[in-house]
Amino acid sequence: MRSETAQSISRGHAPEDPSAAENGTPAFAGNGNPVIFRRLSPPQAVSPRMSEASIDVVGIGNAIVDVIAHADEAFLEKEALVKGTMALIDAERAEALYRLMGPAIEASGGSAGNTMAGLASLGGSGAYIGKVRDDLLGGVFRHDLTAQGVRFATPAATAGPGTARCLILVTGDGQRTLNTYLGACVGLGPDDIDPELIAAAQVTYLEGYLFDPPLAQQAFAKAAAIAHAAGRRVALSLSDPFCVERHRAAFGGLVDGHVDILFANEAEICALYQTEDFAAAAATVRGRVAIAALTRSAEGSLVLTAGEEHPVTAAPVARIVDTTGAGDLYAAGFLHGLTRGLPLPTCGRIGSLCAAEIISHVGARPETALSRLAAEAGLA
Amino acid sequence: MRSETAQSISRGHAPEDPSAAENGTPAFAGNGNPVIFRRLSPPQAVSPRMSEASIDVVGIGNAIVDVIAHADEAFLEKEALVKGTMALIDAERAEALYRLMGPAIEASGGSAGNTMAGLASLGGSGAYIGKVRDDLLGGVFRHDLTAQGVRFATPAATAGPGTARCLILVTGDGQRTLNTYLGACVGLGPDDIDPELIAAAQVTYLEGYLFDPPLAQQAFAKAAAIAHAAGRRVALSLSDPFCVERHRAAFGGLVDGHVDILFANEAEICALYQTEDFAAAAATVRGRVAIAALTRSAEGSLVLTAGEEHPVTAAPVARIVDTTGAGDLYAAGFLHGLTRGLPLPTCGRIGSLCAAEIISHVGARPETALSRLAAEAGLA
Repeated sequence: MRSETAQSISRGHAPEDPSAAENGTPAFAGNGNPVIFRRLSPPQAVSPRMSEASIDVVGIGNAIVDVIAHADEAFLEKEALVKGTMALIDAERAEALYRLMGPAIEASGGSAGNTMAGLASLGGSGAYIGKVRDDLLGGVFRHDLTAQGVRFATPAATAGPGTARCLILVTGDGQRTLNTYLGACVGLGPDDIDPELIAAAQVTYLEGYLFDPPLAQQAFAKAAAIAHAAGRRVALSLSDPFCVERHRAAFGGLVDGHVDILFANEAEICALYQTEDFAAAAATVRGRVAIAALTRSAEGSLVLTAGEEHPVTAAPVARIVDTTGAGDLYAAGFLHGLTRGLPLPTCGRIGSLCAAEIISHVGARPETALSRLAAEAGLA
Repeated sequence: MRSETAQSISRGHAPEDPSAAENGTPAFAGNGNPVIFRRLSPPQAVSPRMSEASIDVVGIGNAIVDVIAHADEAFLEKEALVKGTMALIDAERAEALYRLMGPAIEASGGSAGNTMAGLASLGGSGAYIGKVRDDLLGGVFRHDLTAQGVRFATPAATAGPGTARCLILVTGDGQRTLNTYLGACVGLGPDDIDPELIAAAQVTYLEGYLFDPPLAQQAFAKAAAIAHAAGRRVALSLSDPFCVERHRAAFGGLVDGHVDILFANEAEICALYQTEDFAAAAATVRGRVAIAALTRSAEGSLVLTAGEEHPVTAAPVARIVDTTGAGDLYAAGFLHGLTRGLPLPTCGRIGSLCAAEIISHVGARPETALSRLAAEAGLA
C-alpha cells in the first residue's frame, strides 16, 4: 500500500490551493473566503522530518452534528444509557430518543472535528476529512468548520443516509452521554483520503470512533500509510471504552505498529489492556508509542515517552457545565504545542487549558479564541 | 368580528384535549408524551373574569430557529448592521451573511416562543401559535417547544419557504444583532388562530414582530378580538424600535384600543411616541393600557398602571454573555407572576430574574429550570 500511495502523492492539485477547500460545498454552507492557513509564529525546534509540512494537523473522523439536551439520572437509567460513554444507534432509535429528550441546541461536533476546530482556534493550520450528506445539517457542519479556518474539502454524499447526528444528554454533574446515529459517515472510504493533504501535514490525527463505520477502517489504514511514507507522524485517540471493546485487537495492533502519538483517558487505556489498574495500563503502553498522553479528568494528565514521564495538572474550571469535547480539546492543545515544537509538559498544559474552556459551557467547539487564552496563560 | 369569533368558540375540539398538541407534528419532531399543563400552585387572587381559564398564556409569534455566532464590531460595521436591532433579510442575503459568519450554534428562538418556553420553565401552562415548514428546522422548533411543556398545535406548512431562521451576531459586550429570514412565517394567517385556545387562556400574548409578515396582522386582530370577547387580557410586546417605526400607526391604535398589558424597552417606547425622552414616553403610555412594563437593561424596569408606579431593579448577572431573549424572558416572568395573581412589583422581579438567567449564556431559551431559580429567590 505504501508504494501505491507514494505514487499518488505526486498527482492532482497542490494541497496549498485554497480553492480546494470549496469542493463539494453545498448551498447555505460554504465560507466565501479562501481558507487561510494561519500560523501564529514560525515553527520552532520541530524535528527535521516534520519541517517541511505546510499543514500542522489533518484530522479524520465521523462528521457529526450534536443535539444537546439536559437530562437527569433517572432518564439515563430508564433509557438504559451508560453515563459518560457513546452508544451507536439506528435512525429509528434516534427518532424515538429525540422525542423523549428535553429542549436541545444543535452544534457541530464529531471528535476529530472538535479537535481541528480547537487547533484552528489556537492559531494552528488544520484540515479535516469526513463525510456529510448534502443536506441542511451537512451544510451546518461544513460552515462551522470552514468558518473556524479549517480546510474541509471532502465532498458531501449526494445520496444515502443524512448527515450524522449525536444525541447528547448532559446530566447535572456536567457528564455527557452520547448516542450516535452515523448516517452519512458510513460512506467515508479510502477514496476520500487525499494523499497530498496527508503528506502535507505534520500529524495525521485519527479518532478511534472511525473504526465503527465499515469502510472508514480502510481510509484509516490508507491515511496512516501515506503519512508514514511521507515521514510524518500518526496520532490516534481511543475515543471511548466501548469503542475500544469493539475493536480491541485492531487498536492493539495499530498502537504497536502504526501510531506515534496516542491519546486515551483512563477508562480507554484500561479497556485496551483489559485491566482496572491505570498504573499497569500506563506501564504497558509506555514505549509502544513515541508519546502517550493519558487524560484523567480532574486529576489532569500523564504524558509518557520511553524515557520521560510528565504529570500535568488540570486547569481550573469555575463550574463544569458540559464535559462534551474535553478529550478532543485536550488533543487539540497538545497537538498544537507539539507541532510548534514545544516541550511535552507545555503541550499537556495547553491541552488542559483547552479542555477547561470547553467544559465550562454547553457544546464541544470553543466559544472563545483559544489563542488568546493560551497567550494569557503564557503558553503561546 | 367579535360576534363571529364568539360563535366559533363553541365549535371544534375542547382545548384541554392533550392530543391536539400532536397535530401537524412532522417526523423527528414531536414529543411522544401528552403535553401536561403544569401548574405550580392554584391561581391566587386573580380577577374574577380570568378565573376560569385553563391555560395561563397563549403566545403568538414568528416561529424561528436562531443561528448564533460571535462577531466583532468591525463585522457589524462592514455589513451595515445596527447593533441591538432586528433587520428583515431575504433568502439570498441570509445565505450570503451565513457564509460570512463565524462558527455558529442553532437553537430554537422566536420572541413569543422564547417567552412561552420561559413561562413553561417557571411552571406555567402555556400554548403557542406560529408557522413552521415541515422541514428539519421546523421539527427542531416544534420539539424544543413541546419538550419544554408548551402546547403547540399549529400545523406546519407543507409547501413554500422553509422554516424561518434568525442569524444572530453576538458582540463582545454581549449585545445581539438580529437578521431574520421570515421563511414559512409568512404563511401564518387568521385560520391558524384556534378560538377555543385563545378563549381558554388568561392572557393572549402577541409579539410586535408579527406585524411584519402580511397575513399575521389579521391573525393578530382575530386573536385579540376573541380574547376580549371571552373576557381575557391581551398583551403586546413592541419587539424592536425599527419594527415600531414600520408599524407605528397600527401599534399606536392597538395600544389605545386593544392592549391590556404592554411590554417595551426604552428604545421601543420612545420610538412609539417619537421622543428621545424616556420619562415623556412613559408618561404618555401611562393609562393608555392597564399595565405597562418598560424594561431598561441594567437599570431594571418600570411597571406603570393608571394609579401606580413601581421601579424594579435588575437581577445581578456575573457576566453578560448574550442578551438575546432578555426582553422575551422578562415578559415570561412578568406574565407568570400576573397569571398567579402576584403583586406587580413581584411580577417585575420574576421578570428580572428570568432575564438575568437568559443573558448569562448563549441562546434565548432557559438552560436552568426557572421554577427552581424563582423558588430560591423567594418569588415562587
